[in-house]
Amino acid sequence: MSQEAIVLFAHGARDPEWAVPARQVAAEVQRLRPDVSVSVAFLEFMEPTLADAVDAAAAAGARALRVVPLFVARGGHLKKDVPALIEAAQAKHPDCRIELAAVVGEDAGVVHAMAVYAAGA
Amino acid sequence: MSQEAIVLFAHGARDPEWAVPARQVAAEVQRLRPDVSVSVAFLEFMEPTLADAVDAAAAAGARALRVVPLFVARGGHLKKDVPALIEAAQAKHPDCRIELAAVVGEDAGVVHAMAVYAAGA
Repeated sequence: MSQEAIVLFAHGARDPEWAVPARQVAAEVQRLRPDVSVSVAFLEFMEPTLADAVDAAAAAGARALRVVPLFVARGGHLKKDVPALIEAAQAKHPDCRIELAAVVGEDAGVVHAMAVYAAGA
Repeated sequence: MSQEAIVLFAHGARDPEWAVPARQVAAEVQRLRPDVSVSVAFLEFMEPTLADAVDAAAAAGARALRVVPLFVARGGHLKKDVPALIEAAQAKHPDCRIELAAVVGEDAGVVHAMAVYAAGA
């Protein structure tokens, strides 16, 4: 089992199709990092929850876990709800260092890719 | 005035900081397409609305307008609310062809950029 895990954390929606891009990102992260355990978790409407995903990664032996929010920007969810979820998960799994990354929309490479797409034909 | 316009359409949030990535994308689109009128509009909490942004672009002489949703995925908003907004705007501005693009999260380049960021150190 990998000692490092990445959890892609998305908002979720009632429509099952909503999760398709998140799963595509997960598959591509797994190709880029075959050594790392990659999973997807959701804030609302879909499963697993972030707590469940952290439990599963820790049970599989993860010692370092990076939570990457698949959000365009950082609003109330990311400023309040998610840090509280991370804190609770960290308290439950003291042997696994849990880190909350910045939302994807704040990454320069993602901003550039969104702009190239938006500018396109 | 440009005859072509791009409206980046984001969810919006109560926190003013939320709009920062959307404005960064807009600035980069404007650099990539200096010939095109670029603006940002919001579904909720922030202004202008999509209707206001389309009105402004049409008043400035736009004849073709591309609405690009800055959403990770396509849920109820994109499947129901937004097409209705587009239909209403199109009826109001018959001389301006309004096109709704796929959400940024469905673009392969954006998926790749999100994966590279998520996989990163």
